[in-house]
Amino acid sequence: MTTRVAGCELCELSAPTVVDNDKFAVILVDDANYPGFARVIWKDHVCEVSDLPEADRLLLNDAVYKLELAVRDVMQPLKVNVASLGNVVPHLHWHVIPRYADDAHFPAPVWAQAQRTTPDAVLAERRQRVPQLAEAIARRFASR
Amino acid sequence: MTTRVAGCELCELSAPTVVDNDKFAVILVDDANYPGFARVIWKDHVCEVSDLPEADRLLLNDAVYKLELAVRDVMQPLKVNVASLGNVVPHLHWHVIPRYADDAHFPAPVWAQAQRTTPDAVLAERRQRVPQLAEAIARRFASR
Repeated sequence: MTTRVAGCELCELSAPTVVDNDKFAVILVDDANYPGFARVIWKDHVCEVSDLPEADRLLLNDAVYKLELAVRDVMQPLKVNVASLGNVVPHLHWHVIPRYADDAHFPAPVWAQAQRTTPDAVLAERRQRVPQLAEAIARRFASR
Repeated sequence: MTTRVAGCELCELSAPTVVDNDKFAVILVDDANYPGFARVIWKDHVCEVSDLPEADRLLLNDAVYKLELAVRDVMQPLKVNVASLGNVVPHLHWHVIPRYADDAHFPAPVWAQAQRTTPDAVLAERRQRVPQLAEAIARRFASR
């Protein structure tokens, strides 16, 4: 049984999921500047990675790893950014973000001030790969 | 044998380390706004978590976990932020950052625009715990 907190937007997740099991979900983030941005969202309302029992912690770590692999395979980024912040929504989730030299913030983190506008054609090309990313993620998680 | 890249500031790490073995180092970051900010720096010059063989990946994950525990124990943050970015220095390292409602950027990530000035007395009190944090980290890593 998972712990749910009323009013927590990740306990009441409404976004479409690419992977969904009793422990975690994987979603694609709809961010105009970052096609391929994805998240692993733990189902239980826990705050920190270190709140998890070991088996769950390793399961979550494996999920973030698999997601990173799928993002690298399909999005071919220059760098991957992986982060668990949760200051706004203190419900455990991991961001996996493909980064490119021409993205809006590079080399700063995506949470810094934007440094440029990525050409529409470049973003459109990346956006076209998102369905393929969804398939690659589903395959990665089906093979466990 | 570790791989070194000339000119990489993390291959040529000069900061004092709290933990130092053949696989990784743990350092305390000298950030005026974030006493207790710490990093795990992988020794080999690899770019992404997913570039590591499984045993190393799990070892690094365990190191980040131990560091998070020590930071929580001593710094008693409201939230911990954990991130592997590496856009500026593409040499695998993890940030572990204790966050508080009154810190310079909360609830935004520390890489966003600052939102306030934390009172000096508050920062001084947190800074005083840093030696204790170093001891707690050393203990955590000695017990493996």
